[in-house]
Amino acid sequence: MTKKTVGILGGMGPEATADLFMKIIKATPAKKDQEHLRVVMDSNPKIPDRTAFILGKGEDPRPLLLAGAKNLERLGASFIVIPCNTAHYFHKAIQDSVGIRVLNIMDEVAGHLSGKAQRVGILASTGTLTTRLYENALARCGIETVLPQGTDQDDVMRAIYAVKAGELDIGKEIALEQGRRLVAAGAQAVVAGCTEIPLVLKEGDLEVPVIDATTILAQSAVRFAIED
Amino acid sequence: MTKKTVGILGGMGPEATADLFMKIIKATPAKKDQEHLRVVMDSNPKIPDRTAFILGKGEDPRPLLLAGAKNLERLGASFIVIPCNTAHYFHKAIQDSVGIRVLNIMDEVAGHLSGKAQRVGILASTGTLTTRLYENALARCGIETVLPQGTDQDDVMRAIYAVKAGELDIGKEIALEQGRRLVAAGAQAVVAGCTEIPLVLKEGDLEVPVIDATTILAQSAVRFAIED
Repeated sequence: MTKKTVGILGGMGPEATADLFMKIIKATPAKKDQEHLRVVMDSNPKIPDRTAFILGKGEDPRPLLLAGAKNLERLGASFIVIPCNTAHYFHKAIQDSVGIRVLNIMDEVAGHLSGKAQRVGILASTGTLTTRLYENALARCGIETVLPQGTDQDDVMRAIYAVKAGELDIGKEIALEQGRRLVAAGAQAVVAGCTEIPLVLKEGDLEVPVIDATTILAQSAVRFAIED
Repeated sequence: MTKKTVGILGGMGPEATADLFMKIIKATPAKKDQEHLRVVMDSNPKIPDRTAFILGKGEDPRPLLLAGAKNLERLGASFIVIPCNTAHYFHKAIQDSVGIRVLNIMDEVAGHLSGKAQRVGILASTGTLTTRLYENALARCGIETVLPQGTDQDDVMRAIYAVKAGELDIGKEIALEQGRRLVAAGAQAVVAGCTEIPLVLKEGDLEVPVIDATTILAQSAVRFAIED
C-alpha cells in the first residue's frame, strides 16, 4: 500500500501551520522515519488576512491561496489540508483550481461531533462566523451552535491576533473566559475553530470537551493518507 | 526589502523538521502573519537512513535528497536548510544539484562557537562522527572536540532512534547521561548535533551550555532571509 503525500497550504498563521504539521506526525502510527508520511508545504504568510477581506476591508486572498494549492499539486501532494478555518470560505475556489482533493475542516469537525452533542459552542474568527461555515456544517449533522454575542466576539478576535503576535498569555486568558461563557450558554462542547485557539485553549481547560479542529483535521489527513 | 523564501529539505526525521520550522518562526521578528517568512518544505521520510548508508549498510539517500532540493528550488525557495546533521555529509552533492545556496549546519555551529570555547563535546549520530563533519568544521575555528568513547556512542545512537520512535523519556535519559560524560571529559559546551537530540536535551540540563544546532540553523536562516 502506497501512502499518500499530504499537502499543507499554510502560513495563516505560520505557528498554526507548524502545529498542524506536528499533529499530523503525532497522529501517524510510525516507529521510524521511513514509516511517516511525506508532507509538502507552502507556508505563505503573505496571503492577505481572510477575515479582513470577508468583512470588506482587505485584499483578496484567493490569488495566493490558489497559487499555493497549485504549487502543492505540482510537488506531488495527493491531497491538501488548510490549517486556517477562515480560509475555508474559499474552499470551493481552491478545490476547483486543482485536480486533487482538498479536505474541509468544518466537515471533518461536524462528522466528528455527529451524534455526540446537540449544542456546540464555537470560538472562531469573525470571518468564519460571518460566513456561517461551522453553523452550516454542524446543522447538516443536526447540531445547534452557540456563538459569542456582541462585543464578546470582538474579544475572541483580540485573542486570535494576540496569539498571532506571540502574546500567548493574553490570548489564553481571553479564550478561557469566552469558552466559559459559551458553556454557561449551554454548549456541551466548545470547538476551537480558529487554528490559533488550540495553541492556547486545551482539552481540560473547560468543564466540557474542547474540540481542537486542528487535531481533527490532522487525524483525518492521516486516515485519508493511509486508507486504500 | 524583499525577504527570501526558506526551503526546508526535511523528513529526517519529521519531528525534527517540525522543530526547525517552529524555531524559524520563533526566531523571526514579526507581530502579524504577513511579517513572517514564506517557508516551503518537502518533508520526505522515505529518504534512506543516512548513518546506515555511511556505515556501508544501507541504501543511498542521495537520489531523494537531490530530488527534494530540486523540488524546493522549483517552488521558489531562495535557499535551503536541512534539519538533519548527518545528511550534511552529502552537502556538496546537494549544493551542486541546485542553483540556490544550501546553508551548512556545521559551519553555522562552528561560527557561533568561534572564540567562545576551546573544547566542545558532540552528541551526534555515528554517521556524523564517522565523517568528522563537526570535528573538521570546529577545527577550522580552532576548537577541539570531545566525543563519546566506544559503547557510549552506541548509546547515543539508541537515544536518537528512541526519539525517532517517539520514546522521548528513554531518549532523554541516555542523552543526559552521555552529555554529563562529555562534560566530565572536559567539554566546555555540548553540541546537540543531531536534530533528534535537542528534542530531549535542553539548555540548563547540563552544567555547561547545550548548543542546539537546530536553533543555530534556524537563526542563521532568518538572518540570511532578511539580510539585503
